[in-house]
Amino acid sequence: MQPFWSEQFYNPSANYLAAKNVKKVLDEARASLAHWLGARANEIIFTAGGSEADNLAITGVMSQYPNANLVISGLEHDAILKTATEFNCSVTLITGEGRVDINDLLAKIDDQTVLVSVMLANNEIGTLQPLRDISHKLGEIKSRRRQNGNSLPLYLHTDASQAANYMDLHVSRLGVDLMSLNGGKIYGPKQSGALYVSSKVKLVPLIRGGGQERGLRSGTENVAADIGLARALELVQSDRHVEAARLQELQQLAYRLIGEKLPGAYINGSTKQRLPNNLHIILPGQDNERLLVELDECGIMAAAGSACSADSAEPSHVLRAIGLSDAEARSSLRLTMGRQTTEVDIIRVISVLVELAG
Amino acid sequence: MQPFWSEQFYNPSANYLAAKNVKKVLDEARASLAHWLGARANEIIFTAGGSEADNLAITGVMSQYPNANLVISGLEHDAILKTATEFNCSVTLITGEGRVDINDLLAKIDDQTVLVSVMLANNEIGTLQPLRDISHKLGEIKSRRRQNGNSLPLYLHTDASQAANYMDLHVSRLGVDLMSLNGGKIYGPKQSGALYVSSKVKLVPLIRGGGQERGLRSGTENVAADIGLARALELVQSDRHVEAARLQELQQLAYRLIGEKLPGAYINGSTKQRLPNNLHIILPGQDNERLLVELDECGIMAAAGSACSADSAEPSHVLRAIGLSDAEARSSLRLTMGRQTTEVDIIRVISVLVELAG
Repeated sequence: MQPFWSEQFYNPSANYLAAKNVKKVLDEARASLAHWLGARANEIIFTAGGSEADNLAITGVMSQYPNANLVISGLEHDAILKTATEFNCSVTLITGEGRVDINDLLAKIDDQTVLVSVMLANNEIGTLQPLRDISHKLGEIKSRRRQNGNSLPLYLHTDASQAANYMDLHVSRLGVDLMSLNGGKIYGPKQSGALYVSSKVKLVPLIRGGGQERGLRSGTENVAADIGLARALELVQSDRHVEAARLQELQQLAYRLIGEKLPGAYINGSTKQRLPNNLHIILPGQDNERLLVELDECGIMAAAGSACSADSAEPSHVLRAIGLSDAEARSSLRLTMGRQTTEVDIIRVISVLVELAG
Repeated sequence: MQPFWSEQFYNPSANYLAAKNVKKVLDEARASLAHWLGARANEIIFTAGGSEADNLAITGVMSQYPNANLVISGLEHDAILKTATEFNCSVTLITGEGRVDINDLLAKIDDQTVLVSVMLANNEIGTLQPLRDISHKLGEIKSRRRQNGNSLPLYLHTDASQAANYMDLHVSRLGVDLMSLNGGKIYGPKQSGALYVSSKVKLVPLIRGGGQERGLRSGTENVAADIGLARALELVQSDRHVEAARLQELQQLAYRLIGEKLPGAYINGSTKQRLPNNLHIILPGQDNERLLVELDECGIMAAAGSACSADSAEPSHVLRAIGLSDAEARSSLRLTMGRQTTEVDIIRVISVLVELAG
């Protein structure tokens, strides 16, 4: 990224040679990012972060169809939830395990539904969502629509922000038409991001202007950040199996230690269909605000809901959707692991929790 | 900016101490930026660049008033023009000198007008626009509206992206309610930007989600870029008089040399009401595409229209608005100076142009 902040600061849309060289590096980053999605470079729109990608996906599809509707899962990030509810939107039920209720999702799709949005993995409780199954079912609906002469599209979008470190992102294997990525979640720069948009999807822009990103996202390209995003995706995707296996071992260790040393504590959401870096536990009778302050004093940076809503005292819509009571939500903790997390860290965190909650 | 890419990468919305320290630095950047506009910190929304700020200003106001209209100058950047024309929009005439025709602007304002958008300085021909005069006239209209019981607001927005290196940006002296800034134009990072929104303006967000920027622009804050933007603004604003005077001398030198050595050449737009770093000249009979290639080979990076539309063979709407014929537009060149530009550069550029166009 470094040269593109200073000596290579040229505007990639300019016509002189030095700028065209920057454009070439940007094109290479776009091609690299597309590679990891099994997509074409011209299906990638660079955005400023995951929220903008989510907003572009929803608004870019829905604003073309004033009478249509969309269906989203009850687990979506606010970037989807608050954008989708600007349109005719249904929100699905969630199972107690923290996965989308597919039957409810299918029941909410009608002849006017043009978009379904289900995240690949949840940002709070880390549960993985059955995108391939949903895509398969949408395929059946689309077949029936063709027979009935309904020419409305039915697109599947997934927010893969939280999943990109560990999961397969191949868009054809997942069966998605649009996918949001967020650089800040994969050790890339903050406010880097991208939206994959299949060439068969008709999209209108959210940010209009100079016509960059094939007219779908205007603004001078953030060359350094886009390069950083593409490189970050390459780094996490190329060893995702190894890193996921390493974190799964730590996750199993944590489950075991919690079971042994924190009697009464339990895990929110499926322990099987789950990101390997996420622990979300309830410590009955504990107050998570107090715990967070005391953990912080011990150098342990934990969270309750999502960071975005860290200031809110209300339980998140995700914890409500999986059926937690207010008391349960108030005694739950989100512990996230990453590349720097070791076995020693897990043992220490649990032993601190034993002291605090003991 | 450097520490906030790595060791200080914490999410400023998180609740642990390390994140709160990052939030504090971000707040300081916001306060510093506000200082140079004579604004309050809570009137600053950080955005990803100038285009998003422009889109937010237009859409954030207009989408609340479906029956209302807005008036923009015929010189606006595409980020304004293409966003404004999504709503009920009138575009003003422009004088041959490249300034907004205030009488035409006033004639286009009716009882349903809620927003006027006029850039502080044009990005192609560098002409300065009479914001204070416009603000004064809008004040008169608002007085009459109050007497007539018309409670619709009438806001004035300015895109100051191109002006921020050299011009006074105090919002109360300019009399504006909203102002867009672009970091990439003031030696700050690309895709850094801000929208000033007076506390009396009612705005709705363009990007929804986690509720950052007081709910008006969601997405994890781009801490490093926001710090870079604030620092860049401080640097350019604190010595803007000195740098403007230095460039004005170079501009005068260029005018003189053009007059002496390039007979028939002339300047587009006012030479008095103009940014000190802009030269936009017509070289009759020359083809600017050929000139640009040949200048580039001599290490001189010039442009025809704006960089955003560099690929387009059509004359820009700005050159059309000031009354240029297609032939004149095709023989015009935009030469932009900056902090690195010296007298030697000016003499060399003109002598190369004499060779090429001689």
